[in-house]
Amino acid sequence: MDVDLAQVPVLPVLEVLGVVVAAMSGALAAVRKQFDVFGILVLAWATGLGGGVLRDVLLGAVPPVGISEPRLMLAAVVGGLVMYFGHPRLERARRFIVVLDAGALALFSVVGTVTGLEHGATPLASVVVGVVTAVGGGVLRDLLTGEVPVVLHQRQLYAIPAMAGAAVTAALWALGTTGAVALTAVAVGVFALRLLALRFHLAAPGPWRAPR
Amino acid sequence: MDVDLAQVPVLPVLEVLGVVVAAMSGALAAVRKQFDVFGILVLAWATGLGGGVLRDVLLGAVPPVGISEPRLMLAAVVGGLVMYFGHPRLERARRFIVVLDAGALALFSVVGTVTGLEHGATPLASVVVGVVTAVGGGVLRDLLTGEVPVVLHQRQLYAIPAMAGAAVTAALWALGTTGAVALTAVAVGVFALRLLALRFHLAAPGPWRAPR
Amino acid sequence: MDVDLAQVPVLPVLEVLGVVVAAMSGALAAVRKQFDVFGILVLAWATGLGGGVLRDVLLGAVPPVGISEPRLMLAAVVGGLVMYFGHPRLERARRFIVVLDAGALALFSVVGTVTGLEHGATPLASVVVGVVTAVGGGVLRDLLTGEVPVVLHQRQLYAIPAMAGAAVTAALWALGTTGAVALTAVAVGVFALRLLALRFHLAAPGPWRAPR
Repeated sequence: MDVDLAQVPVLPVLEVLGVVVAAMSGALAAVRKQFDVFGILVLAWATGLGGGVLRDVLLGAVPPVGISEPRLMLAAVVGGLVMYFGHPRLERARRFIVVLDAGALALFSVVGTVTGLEHGATPLASVVVGVVTAVGGGVLRDLLTGEVPVVLHQRQLYAIPAMAGAAVTAALWALGTTGAVALTAVAVGVFALRLLALRFHLAAPGPWRAPR
Repeated sequence: MDVDLAQVPVLPVLEVLGVVVAAMSGALAAVRKQFDVFGILVLAWATGLGGGVLRDVLLGAVPPVGISEPRLMLAAVVGGLVMYFGHPRLERARRFIVVLDAGALALFSVVGTVTGLEHGATPLASVVVGVVTAVGGGVLRDLLTGEVPVVLHQRQLYAIPAMAGAAVTAALWALGTTGAVALTAVAVGVFALRLLALRFHLAAPGPWRAPR
Repeated sequence: MDVDLAQVPVLPVLEVLGVVVAAMSGALAAVRKQFDVFGILVLAWATGLGGGVLRDVLLGAVPPVGISEPRLMLAAVVGGLVMYFGHPRLERARRFIVVLDAGALALFSVVGTVTGLEHGATPLASVVVGVVTAVGGGVLRDLLTGEVPVVLHQRQLYAIPAMAGAAVTAALWALGTTGAVALTAVAVGVFALRLLALRFHLAAPGPWRAPR
């Protein structure tokens, strides 16, 4: 990770912020289920870093950064502790958290896809691991709290912006255009698409019904 | 995969058919849970290719063919789309789907075991990954839709034919007999065993009760 | 595994005992859910060896010992069969099983951490895989039976003794002190801490409430 992001110095900072925010979402789910402090921190870790752990396992990049990179693990713990102590107030800041989470989605889809490409995965496989990086943590959060993964059924445009971002990232890579500016632009685009979906209640369709 | 199956040209075609059918079963579970279109395609992918992804991760054969092989991924998407648009009619074709699913079980157990052996795994480990290939997709389908895995509790003879097929495949390998004819015969045997179990309601026993 | 444990000849025996006990806990959960005999043995295997499988996948030590080491797989099957036939009587021996399970927790945390360190993982990553080895099987057991993982919410001191054991093991490794006596002492300490927690109902705190 560090190698590639050296040319892109803004991404590591945003990545840490993304982990903090995703970890907060995991910790909040655990607080609501009355988990104990260990469970709350595990959920923070699984939600903040689980997508990256799945990505690294799929790429054979082991041990995954999610269990070995102190910077990222600290970010997950910080996110978990902030929510552990702050949840009575932070629940009210829900709108703010949703915006931050859109930022995490955007960053993880770009960083995850680049990580796949740098490990020599095909563009197709890199797009898959980009999406896994972006939504995998939330899927683990939901499974560990006994919920059906929200990304699969809630019809929000959540995975689709991540897929678009991963696909554009892979296309830019094929064109040799993966500097800081280009990648940041993709991330901003995913972020904007997600915010538009939230603002205008854009939704993915459910099971198809034949027109009468 | 391609290397080994070059000697066995009939298997790749049947493997693609197996993925399509398994993907349809995943998509149907997602449709019933009112998942959105993304969720339906994820379930198609996870059910059609998830067993193979787990197998490849256990063998260190990464990235798994389930995220990198366009032929197989396309098969999963096709299976998902067929069920997405066809579910009002296909639910009625339930019996036909069950037969196709028995074929997928048979193929995945043979192909999964051969893949393990070709990666240098021991016969014991190869049998395990063969069974994981055959039933892993269905387990993921059930976990992602919030169900207890049907293969673990429904007492159908489902995993047991797969175990038998994996064990016979490993035995043939030890004897040096893994040509197209031998492997096809094993797959046909698993298929027949599964169909007999369905026809005559053969069941695995539940928790043991001491005779009085 | 064998290499490192050669210097520590008492651990392999205890490790097998740990797998048997953990497998019994998995099989019992499956019996209570009325799983069939295949499901009961899968739960025995997943609970007895699943933590080690997750550890080995995270370390890239594939195929995992949990699918390739006959000694350990036999231990899981024995644990499963003992519970399959003995459950009407063994449920009454609940207190005894809880004590054995504390022993398994202690051993798995030490063995898991040493395995990580021997594979060249950082101390931080080794502590994580030690805890994963200790509690991962129980998490898989709960997910496969449709339960929220008990380790995350039941406020027992269960994961915390494992974390302490893993951290002390990593510290001893850094000091070059990982002989049989030192490692056994750590395992005994984790075991004692877990039994004290059970005896005196020590609990991890739940979600934080601000003092008024």
